[in-house]
Amino acid sequence: VAVFSPDTLARVEAIVGAAYVRTDSDALLAYGTDGTKRRAPADLVVLPGTVEEVAAIARLCNESRVPLVPRGAGTGYSGGAVPTRGGILLSLERLNRILEIDERDLVAVVEPCVTTGDLQEAVEHRGLFYPPDPASLAQSSIGGNIAENAGGPRGFKYGTTGRYVLGLEAVLPTGDIIHTGGRTVKNVVGYDLTSLTVGSEGTLAVVTKAILRLLPKPAHTALVRADFSDVSQAARAVDALLSARVVPSTLELVDGPSLAAVARHLGEPPPAAGAVLLIELDGQPDAVEEEAARVTDACRAVGAAAFQLARTAAERQALWRLRRELSPALREIAPVKLNNDIVVPRGRIPELFAFLARLAREHDVLVPSFGHAGDGNIHVNIMVEDTPDARARAKQAEQHLFEEVVRLGGVLSGEHGIGFVKAPYLRLQLSDDEIALMKRIKAAFDPNGILNPGKIFP
Amino acid sequence: VAVFSPDTLARVEAIVGAAYVRTDSDALLAYGTDGTKRRAPADLVVLPGTVEEVAAIARLCNESRVPLVPRGAGTGYSGGAVPTRGGILLSLERLNRILEIDERDLVAVVEPCVTTGDLQEAVEHRGLFYPPDPASLAQSSIGGNIAENAGGPRGFKYGTTGRYVLGLEAVLPTGDIIHTGGRTVKNVVGYDLTSLTVGSEGTLAVVTKAILRLLPKPAHTALVRADFSDVSQAARAVDALLSARVVPSTLELVDGPSLAAVARHLGEPPPAAGAVLLIELDGQPDAVEEEAARVTDACRAVGAAAFQLARTAAERQALWRLRRELSPALREIAPVKLNNDIVVPRGRIPELFAFLARLAREHDVLVPSFGHAGDGNIHVNIMVEDTPDARARAKQAEQHLFEEVVRLGGVLSGEHGIGFVKAPYLRLQLSDDEIALMKRIKAAFDPNGILNPGKIFP
Repeated sequence: VAVFSPDTLARVEAIVGAAYVRTDSDALLAYGTDGTKRRAPADLVVLPGTVEEVAAIARLCNESRVPLVPRGAGTGYSGGAVPTRGGILLSLERLNRILEIDERDLVAVVEPCVTTGDLQEAVEHRGLFYPPDPASLAQSSIGGNIAENAGGPRGFKYGTTGRYVLGLEAVLPTGDIIHTGGRTVKNVVGYDLTSLTVGSEGTLAVVTKAILRLLPKPAHTALVRADFSDVSQAARAVDALLSARVVPSTLELVDGPSLAAVARHLGEPPPAAGAVLLIELDGQPDAVEEEAARVTDACRAVGAAAFQLARTAAERQALWRLRRELSPALREIAPVKLNNDIVVPRGRIPELFAFLARLAREHDVLVPSFGHAGDGNIHVNIMVEDTPDARARAKQAEQHLFEEVVRLGGVLSGEHGIGFVKAPYLRLQLSDDEIALMKRIKAAFDPNGILNPGKIFP
Repeated sequence: VAVFSPDTLARVEAIVGAAYVRTDSDALLAYGTDGTKRRAPADLVVLPGTVEEVAAIARLCNESRVPLVPRGAGTGYSGGAVPTRGGILLSLERLNRILEIDERDLVAVVEPCVTTGDLQEAVEHRGLFYPPDPASLAQSSIGGNIAENAGGPRGFKYGTTGRYVLGLEAVLPTGDIIHTGGRTVKNVVGYDLTSLTVGSEGTLAVVTKAILRLLPKPAHTALVRADFSDVSQAARAVDALLSARVVPSTLELVDGPSLAAVARHLGEPPPAAGAVLLIELDGQPDAVEEEAARVTDACRAVGAAAFQLARTAAERQALWRLRRELSPALREIAPVKLNNDIVVPRGRIPELFAFLARLAREHDVLVPSFGHAGDGNIHVNIMVEDTPDARARAKQAEQHLFEEVVRLGGVLSGEHGIGFVKAPYLRLQLSDDEIALMKRIKAAFDPNGILNPGKIFP
């Protein structure tokens, strides 16, 4: 490919400096994977330091028809940052500064590789609040959160990343630098390029700066843990809480197999509960206490057996530990995990969990599941031994899961995106006309198809 | 034009039925205007009754290269529904049903010409809540609200229309029927066509159905009216309230000239106040009372002279009357009104009002202003006598306003859109590269440029 001629390599080095171009196989491998553990080597890893450098690299790739794959912290679960077709892996890790936190405009301006958790800490220090809280927030970058429209438990009350993105600076695959939106919370001037770029999985533009909306930090937070005899009872409680018109900040469900995995992982006895809800409430202290009482009543009415209420930060951390230990705990129960983040309409949660029990039986797979039940967004982990036969059963179960989710009026992904991992299933969700329209939009941004090729579309 | 041959007219009549095609000049004129009072006659008014009929009309227009202009309730303030290039005016008035209110999924499914106020009433009857509240809500349609991404006072806490649109059924200019999004609150499958369509001013697709997100209705609402000696004091209070980290549902400002106009209109003595804030709070009763006290303290600290507190619906209606009477009151002070809904970053509100005072003096125009101060979104009305000289001064003042707004980091429109009225100013806000990208997106939807031509782009 043209880019690897000594001449083109020299051009890349002239743009970013030789110190920021990596060609060694260690780097090519290390940057060639993400949270999926799927791996493909880039031909070149480039670490730009400014938006102008990003634009110059994009122009070079566009002229030479070389794939350009942007990468944040590499924590994605759909393979969005994996350079499946080689080319230049553009790591944005040097663009990692919080440029501004403006308490009057209630905005933060950040570069894409600011870590989500670092931003939260910085704004909370000033009494402000950046709600999106993906489980990976200690590692994941704002740019990656924007690329995938990342969610998290607080999405139930506060919405996902997109709601907080007011404006972007971004580089088009042609090398044009554009600014979308701005510092205002309202803006109807032209098409909403900000929302279109959010969730586009790095296929339309490379985000080099983001203007983020901040909220006042809630005065008080409390967490209720409610234990249920089985997951169908917990699912009915979710439905009851929605009907009771309470708006917790989180409404998380952990099913029985997941609870058992965490208990084993922590060396604890098998759990008494068959499912747990973690319900966080925030706001003014009196209102939080009143809502906690309504939550407890609603859960008790459908049969919740035990409650714990955490008010201090330390108490809440202790209860959230269950949720945090899920990922490492699941790793111990089977080596192969197909990690899906499907969504169903909120009222279909009980049906979904009834189906998941059948799915596990019919395909002889483990299906520990947990997640953002208030949003209908459940992480369904299809787990098996690492044998060809077991892997085949897991893929069949996954196909069956997606078909059922679509039948329930749901969608394949709520926060992880499609990447290349779920691209083969896109037609289950979208019509040919819809996919064709999306491809025309892609071409409007990227006429030569160089930016993150092979993602989203089957 | 081809469409008006007897053959083409016959084809239109065959699609929707002769009873739903209007060719009389009364209809052509009546459907040729909107809230701007600018007027251009359509060549044909068509009233489809189904999505299939909309698709067939779109195909016919696309084949014949005839402009197709969708229209909801015709209350827009940027001329978006005015058929400036003739063609077919597609009134969606027959698609006016609330199809579904689902209390478990917390969604409503509506046709585009459901009136915003009717939807609100229907869902509130069931303890649910559809927050977007444009001033025109008694007349304006959900489809029009979606086309313009309409806001309203409650946008401060709840965001604008786009936040509540989960999914759409829409007809492309080529006649394809697409479905975007769905019934789930999270969805990252492919590009976000829902958000792209919202605010696209009927230039990308004709919305024929919308799936809307509902919230629980707040348990309690209170309204504080605070009177200030002048608008700069009120603007400082907005800043103080944002800094005090309260989140009212509305934070509306009415300036002195606007107050005076309403007093005259109602036959009342001149107002003592030089500016007023209307601050609505909602939530659990105790929290609302506590926040009302904080609001009052913050306003008093910057010098507010008088307060009124309304708790019952009747009391609140009485205080909101000031806001509702603004439009008719302003009509009486001068015949020409250039109605602008500019936005500045929230912290720039005091600077904006200082500038508006200079603007009125320098250009010898009246500039009564009011609006959604918490969002930095102010309705700036430039008003003059109806003489050529005065109109020229008003246009100069408008140009000066837009330049200053952009200088302050703001935008030309927060809720009315660009339409054809503000299209000449688009380049103040967007770069050539950004406009070129938007035009490529337009072409991805509408290769022949038949849908609502002459809007948004200069």
